Amino acid sequence: MNNKRIGVFDSGVGGLTVVKELIRQLPNESICYLGDTARAPYGSKTKDTIIRFSIENVSFLLKRNVKIIVVACNTSSAIALDELRKNFKINIIGVVEAGARAAIDITRNKRIGIIGTRATIESKAYEKIIKMKDKNIKIFSYATPLLVPLVEEGWLEERETELILRRYLKYFNGKNIDTLLLGCTHYPLLKNLIKRIMPGINIIDSAIEISKTIRAMLESSGMLASRKNNNKHEFYVTDTPDNFNKIAKMFLKESIISAKKIDLKKR
Amino acid sequence: MNNKRIGVFDSGVGGLTVVKELIRQLPNESICYLGDTARAPYGSKTKDTIIRFSIENVSFLLKRNVKIIVVACNTSSAIALDELRKNFKINIIGVVEAGARAAIDITRNKRIGIIGTRATIESKAYEKIIKMKDKNIKIFSYATPLLVPLVEEGWLEERETELILRRYLKYFNGKNIDTLLLGCTHYPLLKNLIKRIMPGINIIDSAIEISKTIRAMLESSGMLASRKNNNKHEFYVTDTPDNFNKIAKMFLKESIISAKKIDLKKR
Repeated sequence: MNNKRIGVFDSGVGGLTVVKELIRQLPNESICYLGDTARAPYGSKTKDTIIRFSIENVSFLLKRNVKIIVVACNTSSAIALDELRKNFKINIIGVVEAGARAAIDITRNKRIGIIGTRATIESKAYEKIIKMKDKNIKIFSYATPLLVPLVEEGWLEERETELILRRYLKYFNGKNIDTLLLGCTHYPLLKNLIKRIMPGINIIDSAIEISKTIRAMLESSGMLASRKNNNKHEFYVTDTPDNFNKIAKMFLKESIISAKKIDLKKR
Repeated sequence: MNNKRIGVFDSGVGGLTVVKELIRQLPNESICYLGDTARAPYGSKTKDTIIRFSIENVSFLLKRNVKIIVVACNTSSAIALDELRKNFKINIIGVVEAGARAAIDITRNKRIGIIGTRATIESKAYEKIIKMKDKNIKIFSYATPLLVPLVEEGWLEERETELILRRYLKYFNGKNIDTLLLGCTHYPLLKNLIKRIMPGINIIDSAIEISKTIRAMLESSGMLASRKNNNKHEFYVTDTPDNFNKIAKMFLKESIISAKKIDLKKR
């Protein structure tokens, strides 16, 4: 038993899909979430900067006394994970690894599609991990930069969103993929629409996959929280929380949250 | 005569619409452009941070020996302009003032519509300046956050963009506005589409308006560059220039630019 919180960080609000799934799969656990909203998005920053920001985020979460660190940010997970593991002793799980592993496990014809922000796709983060584990897998990646702003606008089922998705997903016509990896934590909110456009395809939702990994890890090491765990979730952001709180409602639905602003430099 | 460069800064790539218009209206002039891409977007940052960033940007341009400073960033223009003028002696012109003044001059029925990013609309920057100059003007503001990503995707005339624009501009139905102010430096690239959707309306393009202001100011103070001015434009960014260069081609068409990365802290 371990009633400490699960520490999760992201550059912004997207990691809340991971929080939602953690709450669903592990209802006794409490989360400590940090959204580095003042410095988001990470995708356009250089490698050194992303590593520095990621180290600062982990340091903050450790001061909040968490039992495990979840890197819910795709960019940070792709670029800073090795460095974080070198710098900290605590278990650190990255969203890219979890998604990549799930895609490898589920594909039958070894043809996987990946969509993500321009930064994630250009980093080839998923591609590298998948190829490392199975070099016979054929990967088709496509950047879909309008999806994050569409989700943040709250247009989850609108006609405009469907048209844009159809246009983006046309890229996969004739590629004969059997699995589509959602390489961005915002995209699970568009899953219904994607299923409608590509029926029968395996959709990999990294939020679900990383939550499974965390559950397995906590179970096997006896670190699950007790049923009587009375902790509550905590949410921190590095800029004014207004917009974060508004979008968070859309992501988390049932639990309406109120984030606190913190200053990473002062800690 | 004054052959020094015109200094322009923006949080990213959007200010290039101002550069394009400056080059058109003042072909002898040379521009020194700074895009603070490492810290963009400014819209979600706090006031103190935006002022600090803006001061750093002006300091950099002054070291490049410019003769006038153009704040092409809406957020910085709305929030930091007074502070910049307190801190520096050089003439500093802001894009918000220029656009607001033009809208006041052109409206006949004193009913003005404004579109912009969520940050610009929530700041009420245009509204405050317009009301200060004429409190009888009725203003209708609407946040249109998907337009920047659509422009950066290069979808300037696509059907998806038209549908989204039509949906946004429906907000002005029945409001009887005769003037629409484009409150974001990316939006001039969508002007054709907007004209088609709202025929007969006056469209205020801040890039054109601020360039007129700068021309008038340089002319009246004898600070125009000579015809034989052999300077060239300079472009600086604070993060890797790849994406900037790519989008810049779309903004500036004829002149293909290549930006240099600089570190504001080191200067």
